[in-house]
Formats: sequence, C-alpha cells, structure tokens
Amino acid sequence: MSAPTPAPCSPEDVRRVACIGAGVIGGGWVAHFLARGYDVTAWDPATDAEDKLRRLVGAAWPALEQMGLADGASQDRLTVTATLAEAVADAQFVQESAPEKLELKRSLLAELDAATPPGVVIASSTSGYPMTDMQPPHDAAATPQRLVVGHPFNPPYLIPLVEVVGGERTDAAAVEWSSRFYDVAGKSVITMDRELPGFIANRLQEALWREALHMVAEGEASVADIDASITEGPGLRWAFMGPCLTFALAGGEGGMAHMLDHFGPSLKSPWTRLEAPELDGALRDAMVDGCAEAAGDRTYADLVAERDQGVIDVLRATGRLGGDRR
Amino acid sequence: MSAPTPAPCSPEDVRRVACIGAGVIGGGWVAHFLARGYDVTAWDPATDAEDKLRRLVGAAWPALEQMGLADGASQDRLTVTATLAEAVADAQFVQESAPEKLELKRSLLAELDAATPPGVVIASSTSGYPMTDMQPPHDAAATPQRLVVGHPFNPPYLIPLVEVVGGERTDAAAVEWSSRFYDVAGKSVITMDRELPGFIANRLQEALWREALHMVAEGEASVADIDASITEGPGLRWAFMGPCLTFALAGGEGGMAHMLDHFGPSLKSPWTRLEAPELDGALRDAMVDGCAEAAGDRTYADLVAERDQGVIDVLRATGRLGGDRR
Repeated sequence: MSAPTPAPCSPEDVRRVACIGAGVIGGGWVAHFLARGYDVTAWDPATDAEDKLRRLVGAAWPALEQMGLADGASQDRLTVTATLAEAVADAQFVQESAPEKLELKRSLLAELDAATPPGVVIASSTSGYPMTDMQPPHDAAATPQRLVVGHPFNPPYLIPLVEVVGGERTDAAAVEWSSRFYDVAGKSVITMDRELPGFIANRLQEALWREALHMVAEGEASVADIDASITEGPGLRWAFMGPCLTFALAGGEGGMAHMLDHFGPSLKSPWTRLEAPELDGALRDAMVDGCAEAAGDRTYADLVAERDQGVIDVLRATGRLGGDRR
Repeated sequence: MSAPTPAPCSPEDVRRVACIGAGVIGGGWVAHFLARGYDVTAWDPATDAEDKLRRLVGAAWPALEQMGLADGASQDRLTVTATLAEAVADAQFVQESAPEKLELKRSLLAELDAATPPGVVIASSTSGYPMTDMQPPHDAAATPQRLVVGHPFNPPYLIPLVEVVGGERTDAAAVEWSSRFYDVAGKSVITMDRELPGFIANRLQEALWREALHMVAEGEASVADIDASITEGPGLRWAFMGPCLTFALAGGEGGMAHMLDHFGPSLKSPWTRLEAPELDGALRDAMVDGCAEAAGDRTYADLVAERDQGVIDVLRATGRLGGDRR
C-alpha cells in the first residue's frame, strides 16, 4: 500500500486526524474519528465553532458508546485550533468538510495543500463536486496528487458508507491509501474508478428525491405519503439488501433475468420523469450477471429466508412488531 | 364506513378472503391473510399452483410465527379451488394478483366482477396500471364501482405498505372500505385521492432503479456498488425515516428550509438523468411545511436522537455491529 511521496505513514499507523470545517458533517467526522480512538484536531472559522462542535460530539457520544468505542477513545482527544495551519501541522490525514460552494472548496483545498505536511492525504467531504474541478493545477507550490474525495453520509459517525474517488491530477496511490485508511477507521468504502457528478449513492438518492419533489409540486402526494411509502415499503428491505438484489428476488426463482424480460417493456412507461436507458442485451446481461455475483452461493430460497429475517429484524428493531409503532 | 351497495359486511367483520393468482405476490397475500386469521380461498390457472402455493406459505410460516399469528391462524384454513367462481363464491373480499399484463387484468377483473357476490370489494395488486384502464364500463352486467387498486410490496406478508386508489368508475366508498379493511388486516395503508401511474412508492423506486440502470449501462458503477451504496448508506435511514425528513435533518437546525435554500441551485446540476422540477416558492413551502408537520412536536435534537438510535438498532438487527457482517 503506497501513498503519495513521501508517505508519512501506512493507513494502519495513522494516529492523528485533522478535520477542517465543523458543521453537521465535519462535526460528525470529528465524533467518528474520536470514537475510533484517533487524536483529532479541528478548525472552523465560525466564532462559536468550538462550543457547537463539543455539543455535537457530546450529543453523539452515547450513540457511539452503544456502537462500541475503540480502546482509548475519548472526547478529550479533541483539540480545536485557532488556525487552519495549526490543525493540519501534525496531521497524518485531513478531512475537509466546508460548505458546498465550489470557489470556497477550491481556495480552501489549495490552502490546505500548502499547509499540510508532504504526502499526507487530504480528503474532501464534498457531496457532489468532482475533485478535478476543485484541485489546484500542478505547479511548484501545489501537490494536487494527494487530494481525494471521501464522501460520507449523514451522520458520518453512524452511516458506514464513504465514496472514494480521485480527480485527474490525483495519484492512484492516494485513492488506494485513503480507501484503506477509511476501512481501517471503520467505514464501508466504495472506491470509484472514475468521476461522476454526485458519485453513486447521491445520484440514486437524488433521482428518488427529484421524483418526490415532482409529486409534491403536482399535488400528487404529500410529504407524509412519500416518507411513509418508503419507511413502510422499500426502505425496510434497503436497510440490508440493495435495490438490484431486491428487484431480482421479486422475480421469484427466475430472478433478475425474469424481471427484466417481464418488466423490461414497462421500463418505458411513464413512471417517473426520468428517461429510461435502452434495455439492450449488454445492459440486461450486466444486471443479471451482477445479481448472480451478488447472490454468490446463496440459492433463491436462501435469499428469501435472509430477506424475511432481515425485514423482521428491522421491524422489531424499529419498534414496529406487536403494534409498538414509533 | 360504507361499502358499495349492497354492503356484504363491515371491514372489521370480514372472515373470508379470496386470492386470485398464486404466484410470488398472490401467494404472499395468501400467507398474510392466513397469518391474520382469515379463511382463504385461492385460485390460479397453473397446473402446479396448489403445490407451489402451499410450499410458499409453508416457507413463509416461520417468519409469520415470529411476527405473531392472529388467534386461530392456520395454514389449514387455505382452500385451493378448481375454478375462479368457487374461489370467490363466498368471499367477503377479493385480492387479484395476476401477471402484469393489461389485457389479462381487464378480462380477469370483468370475470371476477361477474362471479363475485354483489358489493364485495375486489382489489388488484397491479404494480402500475391505473384502475381506470382495467375496470369494465358500467353496464347491466358490470359493477366497476367496487374495483380498487390495493398495491402491495414484496413480500406482502412482511412489508406493511399497501397503496389504495380507485379508478374513474370506482365508488369513493369502496376506496374507503378497502383502506379500512387493509388496516384491520394489519397493513400500513396510503390512500391516494387520484390515479398516478406507478402510484407513489414505485415511482420513487423506479426513479432510483432507472438511474441505477443508466449507471450500469455506462459502466459508471457495478451492481454490487449500487446495492452497497444503498445498504451501507441511505437505506439504513430509510428503514424508519423517509427521504424528506432525512433530508431535512441533514440541514441541521435549519432543517428543510435551510436545505432547499442552500442546495436548491444544485438541484439543476447534472446529477441523475431526471429533469428537476422548478423549485418555486410554492414547492419550497410545501416541502418545508410537510416536514414540519412530519416532525410534529419533536425538536431537531429529538429527531437526531431518534435517527441515531434507529440506525444503531438497524445495524445491530442486521448483524452489522461488532464486525458481525452478513
């Protein structure tokens, strides 16, 4: 596992993490890294940032205790610094979580690049900008090769997913190093081999979200209907089985192939305002093969049993068995 | 609570349910109604239908026992009939779950209408056809006013959601009666006041699903990436908190208003292939008000605590705390 030259340490040896920006996302990262036993330095330009951050971490701590703290994890290992430079001076990894404004991200990442020790990976929490649009060009002062996107989900201290992707000027080694680091730090990582606006999960969320906005705009459904339609329906399955494999199961023993062959034509029907892709042989096969790979050794009956137990467990866990509704 | 004239019985007094079509969905309905203590008659034209149906019910039964059976519930209360007419002859409610083919649904619903006792509500499990396109016209022989859509999610014996909506020739009383019946029968009901292709949850699912297909078609993400991006990310929250309220929480104490004002412009950015609606003042207010209503008396801190506990409970329930991954 290599990092941009010179490598400060291996992903396993990181002890000190800097978090730049301490709002909902940045503060969530601080809580996560503290719970995993890291020393965390944090900086945010807001005057009340330290108070808000310590309140956020304090509010999250009982949840983190339930999840299981790493040895030595403590809220006392947080240092809020007066300057950005102090925050990153000794950092072995930097997580940037500034507001989602392109110009701000660009200037902040350039400033971080200048202030952070050589080779230390700097990851941006951006929820949608490609790193290529944010990273500085190569020049005597800038080392854009250690800049990656490490996109978390709210709250970062609970939701495992991080999407990792580099920009045009990012070293593949930095992408690899940060993916490994997040994994060591207890996250669930998807490493993307190309830039895509919104990455993966946000594109999927956004598609759903846009359709929801259309329905509300047209008076076709209320906010309450939309939320209930997910929490009482597909959301229960999606907590543990993704939309592709879920859809494959709806095909019975015929699986994804049956579903695509049976429902392929209705893909063109006017559900959603999203234009459907051409369901050609290549796409059909990619879906079928992907689901077969996801299923692995598990038979249809195995998957049904697993799904059923999962839904029951989720219903019970969220207080919806025995009439005890939230 | 009134039903189409003459009303056979109130929703609370139903004892005998007929299920027409016994595939994955129809069989799932049979399992659900048996578990809720109903006498169920079932009919399906396939020659091996009875064997498959009894196997499906048998496979589902341990899950249903975990969920809690109604008093007197038994697999022995299923009768598979040789004809459609026998199945519905004494029914107090009919659930149709034939394959999703419009012409088949139209002729089958006309046949069911002719064979079913007067006033008994007939619900279709269609996953997308509007009832207006399926129900027969009013004439001397037909009583389309008792035909409704009662759209379940797979598997119907576990996923609570049913979407209820009538067609142009459906009595409002039949919609009201069936919504109440499903509620009594243990389902979570969304009653729609207008027809919308794909109803609500499927439009949302389909938007996500189409974007997923685009990504696979373009080689931008694998099936495994797509599934993991949901189960490790947004899916964990959607098991108990819908996309609108979840999105509102991401806005911190500023909630949905902050999110829309902050991220409104990025709604137009090229995430997803779905054209975004105009985020005008009316839509903004509808979203903000809807979320405020959903939150009710709960403060931001209350909602955060509830969400955090929910995610932890879901992670624990699905074996993802303490490294015990499925």
